[in-house]
Amino acid sequence: MDHSDDDDYSIQGGEGGDVESGGRGRGGFMERRESGMSSFSESAREPLLHLKSRVNTTSQIAIVGSKVYPIESLDYEIFENELIKQDWRSRKRVEIFQYIFLKWTLALCIGLFTGLVGFFNNIAVENIAGFKLLLTSNLMLNAKYFQAFAAYAGINVILAFSAAALCAFIAPAAAGSGIPEVKAYLNGVDAHSILAPSTLFVKIFGSIFGVSAGFVVGKEGPMVHTGACIANLLGQGGSRKYHLTWKWLRYFKNDRDRRDLITCGAAAGVAAAFRAPVGGVLFALEEAASWWRSALLWRTFFTTAVVAVVLRSFIQFCRSGNCGLFGQGGLIMFDVNSAIPAYNTVDLLAVLLIGVLGGLFGCLYNYLVDKVLRTYSIINERGPAFKILLVITISLLTSCCAFGLPWLVQCTPCPSGFENECPTIGRSGNYKNFQCQPGHYNDLASLFFNTNDDAIRNLFSPRHRKQFQISTLLIFFVGTYFLGVITYGIAIPSGLFIPVILAGSSYGRLVGRLVGPISNLDVGLFALLGAASFLGGTMRMTVSLCVILLELTNDLLMLPLVMLVLLISKTVADSFNKGVYDQIVEMKGLPYMEAHAKAYMRNLTAGDVCSGPLITFSGVQKVGDILHALRMTRHNGFPVIDEPPFSEAPELCGLVLRSHLLVLLKGKKFTKNRVLSGSELLRFFHAFDFAKPGSGKGLKVEDLDLSVEEMEMYVDLHPITNTSPYMVVETMSLAKAAVLFRELGLRHLCVVPKTPGRPPIVGILTRHDFMPEHILGLYPEFIRHKGPA
Amino acid sequence: MDHSDDDDYSIQGGEGGDVESGGRGRGGFMERRESGMSSFSESAREPLLHLKSRVNTTSQIAIVGSKVYPIESLDYEIFENELIKQDWRSRKRVEIFQYIFLKWTLALCIGLFTGLVGFFNNIAVENIAGFKLLLTSNLMLNAKYFQAFAAYAGINVILAFSAAALCAFIAPAAAGSGIPEVKAYLNGVDAHSILAPSTLFVKIFGSIFGVSAGFVVGKEGPMVHTGACIANLLGQGGSRKYHLTWKWLRYFKNDRDRRDLITCGAAAGVAAAFRAPVGGVLFALEEAASWWRSALLWRTFFTTAVVAVVLRSFIQFCRSGNCGLFGQGGLIMFDVNSAIPAYNTVDLLAVLLIGVLGGLFGCLYNYLVDKVLRTYSIINERGPAFKILLVITISLLTSCCAFGLPWLVQCTPCPSGFENECPTIGRSGNYKNFQCQPGHYNDLASLFFNTNDDAIRNLFSPRHRKQFQISTLLIFFVGTYFLGVITYGIAIPSGLFIPVILAGSSYGRLVGRLVGPISNLDVGLFALLGAASFLGGTMRMTVSLCVILLELTNDLLMLPLVMLVLLISKTVADSFNKGVYDQIVEMKGLPYMEAHAKAYMRNLTAGDVCSGPLITFSGVQKVGDILHALRMTRHNGFPVIDEPPFSEAPELCGLVLRSHLLVLLKGKKFTKNRVLSGSELLRFFHAFDFAKPGSGKGLKVEDLDLSVEEMEMYVDLHPITNTSPYMVVETMSLAKAAVLFRELGLRHLCVVPKTPGRPPIVGILTRHDFMPEHILGLYPEFIRHKGPA
Repeated sequence: MDHSDDDDYSIQGGEGGDVESGGRGRGGFMERRESGMSSFSESAREPLLHLKSRVNTTSQIAIVGSKVYPIESLDYEIFENELIKQDWRSRKRVEIFQYIFLKWTLALCIGLFTGLVGFFNNIAVENIAGFKLLLTSNLMLNAKYFQAFAAYAGINVILAFSAAALCAFIAPAAAGSGIPEVKAYLNGVDAHSILAPSTLFVKIFGSIFGVSAGFVVGKEGPMVHTGACIANLLGQGGSRKYHLTWKWLRYFKNDRDRRDLITCGAAAGVAAAFRAPVGGVLFALEEAASWWRSALLWRTFFTTAVVAVVLRSFIQFCRSGNCGLFGQGGLIMFDVNSAIPAYNTVDLLAVLLIGVLGGLFGCLYNYLVDKVLRTYSIINERGPAFKILLVITISLLTSCCAFGLPWLVQCTPCPSGFENECPTIGRSGNYKNFQCQPGHYNDLASLFFNTNDDAIRNLFSPRHRKQFQISTLLIFFVGTYFLGVITYGIAIPSGLFIPVILAGSSYGRLVGRLVGPISNLDVGLFALLGAASFLGGTMRMTVSLCVILLELTNDLLMLPLVMLVLLISKTVADSFNKGVYDQIVEMKGLPYMEAHAKAYMRNLTAGDVCSGPLITFSGVQKVGDILHALRMTRHNGFPVIDEPPFSEAPELCGLVLRSHLLVLLKGKKFTKNRVLSGSELLRFFHAFDFAKPGSGKGLKVEDLDLSVEEMEMYVDLHPITNTSPYMVVETMSLAKAAVLFRELGLRHLCVVPKTPGRPPIVGILTRHDFMPEHILGLYPEFIRHKGPA
Repeated sequence: MDHSDDDDYSIQGGEGGDVESGGRGRGGFMERRESGMSSFSESAREPLLHLKSRVNTTSQIAIVGSKVYPIESLDYEIFENELIKQDWRSRKRVEIFQYIFLKWTLALCIGLFTGLVGFFNNIAVENIAGFKLLLTSNLMLNAKYFQAFAAYAGINVILAFSAAALCAFIAPAAAGSGIPEVKAYLNGVDAHSILAPSTLFVKIFGSIFGVSAGFVVGKEGPMVHTGACIANLLGQGGSRKYHLTWKWLRYFKNDRDRRDLITCGAAAGVAAAFRAPVGGVLFALEEAASWWRSALLWRTFFTTAVVAVVLRSFIQFCRSGNCGLFGQGGLIMFDVNSAIPAYNTVDLLAVLLIGVLGGLFGCLYNYLVDKVLRTYSIINERGPAFKILLVITISLLTSCCAFGLPWLVQCTPCPSGFENECPTIGRSGNYKNFQCQPGHYNDLASLFFNTNDDAIRNLFSPRHRKQFQISTLLIFFVGTYFLGVITYGIAIPSGLFIPVILAGSSYGRLVGRLVGPISNLDVGLFALLGAASFLGGTMRMTVSLCVILLELTNDLLMLPLVMLVLLISKTVADSFNKGVYDQIVEMKGLPYMEAHAKAYMRNLTAGDVCSGPLITFSGVQKVGDILHALRMTRHNGFPVIDEPPFSEAPELCGLVLRSHLLVLLKGKKFTKNRVLSGSELLRFFHAFDFAKPGSGKGLKVEDLDLSVEEMEMYVDLHPITNTSPYMVVETMSLAKAAVLFRELGLRHLCVVPKTPGRPPIVGILTRHDFMPEHILGLYPEFIRHKGPA
């Protein structure tokens, strides 16, 4: 896992369609320069134009180009400017149609491509891993144990190396699960290149190589990330460099639509990974998205339905044997015995025990993963070579475990009735012969020496296959638990679901075996409950996990029991630490806005945390001053203050965005004097000129090339000012301001003075000002209070 | 359905924990009195106390007593007041524990009771309706057709009369589905007595009688309402009159917790009605709730899990025959043939056709229901006798249809292999003999002359029971469609799900029969798809309907097809009109805040719609003036303005609530002079004195008894003022203000002037100011623009 890009992210605007001022890096609040440019007050010589009519001047083209469909638009500014309105009215119907059509087409395409990639992933893994196991099994059969190990470990190392090399050299952002990053993105934090095409490429192939290499990793997290990348690629168009983008896509060049698409992509990813369309929607809702709307539910649902249909069609196609070694094992759908008899008290106690165990194992897992990640990040930071070395080390360790541990257990005679399945000779079946004599199988090898999907299928298999000894389950549990912990964090795309399900179902089945004689429930069901409890204990999801498990096993009758263990394990684990994804988000230092304000924020006011002198512009500002401000700070938004003679007293005109300023300056429509030139100015710009560009492709201040003469000229900022930013008084409790900020998904929140007669703006709150590091840095006395929140 | 109480509702505060000023009735915005009391400016003689420290004084005990758990609390004000803080710090841990414990206990209890009621409802309906059908069948068997009809219609009328009488005399609010009211409640509109204990009582028994009476109504909507009533009753405690409330419940006496509980209740209702725990959660999320939090997902899920366990236990208990006529038919769980073969193009076209038909039938249904409701409301408004008469008329009509229409079709010979089931003689089985000779059955009677649940089960039954003729299905579809339309709106608790499923599955099966020869799909599956499409066309839900149907049929394999028809039918229907529940909310005139702002709001500013002179108080106000203001207006919130000498210039201090003013005045801690007496004042009040009382039990202005002397004294309003209400500038676009209002769930939004030097507050926006009636009343020119939004 690469942490070198941690500091490199930008902040998106949100639901409120509000505009920004501080995509500063971590600690960026220190950077507010104490330069003397806090207010450019210069008396003007031009006549006072009529600006303050009661007509709604709410930000003119400030957020233009973003949205055209009135129903869902929160960026109300689009129709406001008279000039654009003229142009717009005539085209409105067509544009709305284009927008709706494109919205649904994109959802369809996201579903199609994600389904396709999901299927491709499965087919590749099944074939590569299947070939590897087949080769090794054949060598084992001829008692060439050393060659078998060499072949097995060798292939694993090669695959691991490929995955690690892709990650290390092409897209470091593709390492790890990707779910924390997607979650942070949907919260408004745009980490560098997290959704770039190169990341997508590495995520797909890295995941295939990684899973095939026999690591204890899943393809689920990477699928979610892949879905998000696909959505981003489709929504933003390909690279502008190669003219791969499309004119119509300009409608989606804004934060809200982009976020909606990514949400669809994440849901599609889960749907493709688990063949769980409803589970995908719920995952997006419960875990991924920070803001949710009813309309989104519907669109997400459509996308996952498309995924389900695509997968179904391909599986139909593969049934006739067109897909090599891809068989039943491909896309997971586990078979659990559904005939649940009336369960007795012992069963219920066992289920409770599983729930509690899941909670405890889960929070310990999170704790260990955190520690391991911090350790690995030190290694990974040293460079690609170290990353690859770490991956190869873990790969060898995994190979040794998978090949070595099965020697510890005794061979089991094949159960009657399974003569043609057991032992598996020369095929990649479930009753591994391994080193046993004919008619016997090694039950630990059936778990370790198999694909992860098949191992889970074995663990979930119902009672009539009493195939696992207690010692086997114990060894397997300990093995996968610790392999899972040490594998997450190496430089390959690695999901957490599968390791957790593996470990969870093994201790669940273990409990089932132990209470077997006095229980009415099936051991396979116990395994499922174990998996559920461990998932609940690590990821702390409820409804979505429940539905995903139901869709995986296609059995609704076990719903109450699954719900029960999920509730227990989540409750137990929540009293110790956070969910694993939240923990990773925090560890990566992404400025994630929590849904709830911290308790100590109640003791602070909004004014307490907005520090430093503010850089403001006046309504008509000198070009050189603007350029200087843009160069000297990394602020993304600047308050505009109208001063006499443009108003009677200094008053807050609104906020202007860095990106819009850059477009305005690039246009070079300046005036010699300090005059209001708004309407002429706008004639030169098209609304879409101000649309948010694709990731990282916007104008930079270095791109501007202004002459000394131009620097002395003036430009009217009114046309691009958002004249009604959301604001709070300085005495409002910080907690209340945080709620406003979070619920409306703002980037900037203006803090205005309580008492009249002071400058019209006290400061601007950005996402960073709400981060605990910032607040507790300013007010260390609250650290002890941190506890309950 | 009773509309007499339409005008009688109050508005709750919301997520933002903000406080109120306008629970005025519809058109209440007219009432802003033009009295001269717009500002009580009186020079004071007392020294200027230090009020404006930079310490967070954000609303002192303004919203106290509402919340103690810091994590979820949005009412941050609780710790602010120094006096209370002292008291609070010591008790905090205990209180937090009490709160959490109680929250989960309440969720458990809601689940338990709703499950219990759901089961009771089923068992009662099965027994009553079963007895009725048994009696009639026996008479039919003896060819006593006239007596059979008399018995059938007679029992129906008696049951219908009981239900109608309960509704008309005890709780008119119990009529109808209840889902629109619950939806409006969760949006912040507290319609009169909608969740009262009497409503609960009538809803339970009225629903049993109504469903048993053979009406084409379901128990699902009423179960949702019942769940909400149970939640309200448990959360608020019983009547304070009979000392049925509990001290600990004071934590839940605030809008947010109350709303959370009601959400749990609604989810539990769906879970109990359909045995669909996940469906219940999703219903609450998609249809019922207006604000949603992740924490709520978990709690709702817990509640519905409890419901599922309760139902399961009772069904186990009943399996041994302890429950009279309650059999398999009781709690719905339909059996659909799940073996879906590869479907061909014809199937897909048929499925598309069903989707489109569902959309068309659905929007027509909504249109007709709306018209019928408007007609019935005229009748119902005339008084209870008219209500009952209407119910009896519809009951007789329904009886005639159910008994008469089956004579139109030919008898069908019993299928081979079903000799001991067919025809049903003397039992309430599925192959009704009706008037047919032995060995034959009347297939229309099997649908009409049955409980609704059994009819649906018959329609969903798989291919090998080829029991319904095309004409039968056609007659049944037309019959239930129109009976469904004319039944909803009469004064009994009546759900919409069952009528819609009945009609939908009959045309679905009809389509299935028509394409049967060239189709691979089962007719039962077609019936299911028909039901899904019609549900999608009327209710416009997607994911929740999908999951409910899956849970009803316990089959995940048909998921893609169900999703497809739901998407199509919703899309088709949405292009004509609104969902049926939204339509009823609108028809009832409840001021529902839509999630999206209307398009024309973009052309208005916040200042444009807040009309009338404002009644403000100064920080220390004369008691008589306050009392006068409370008497003369129905405002729920008043701005408090600090004026010299308490501040340098007039400035907005905050908002004070009517309910808190009443408590303050009731306490009679007044001062002779105009002094700041805040700290002494608070010693006399406990935080919980200001907690929101249970529904309709708060202090009224009539309860105050103040002497003439007291009227001349002063009271310091600072301690009860919320000093940081959310606010917007007057020039902000109304649409943007609406987003703020809706997202944070506010009751009052202060509008402040843009330019300095004017009075510090321009007006207050309340929910009513965002209603189309109000805005379009002020600006009729926007009516033509209303279209696209």
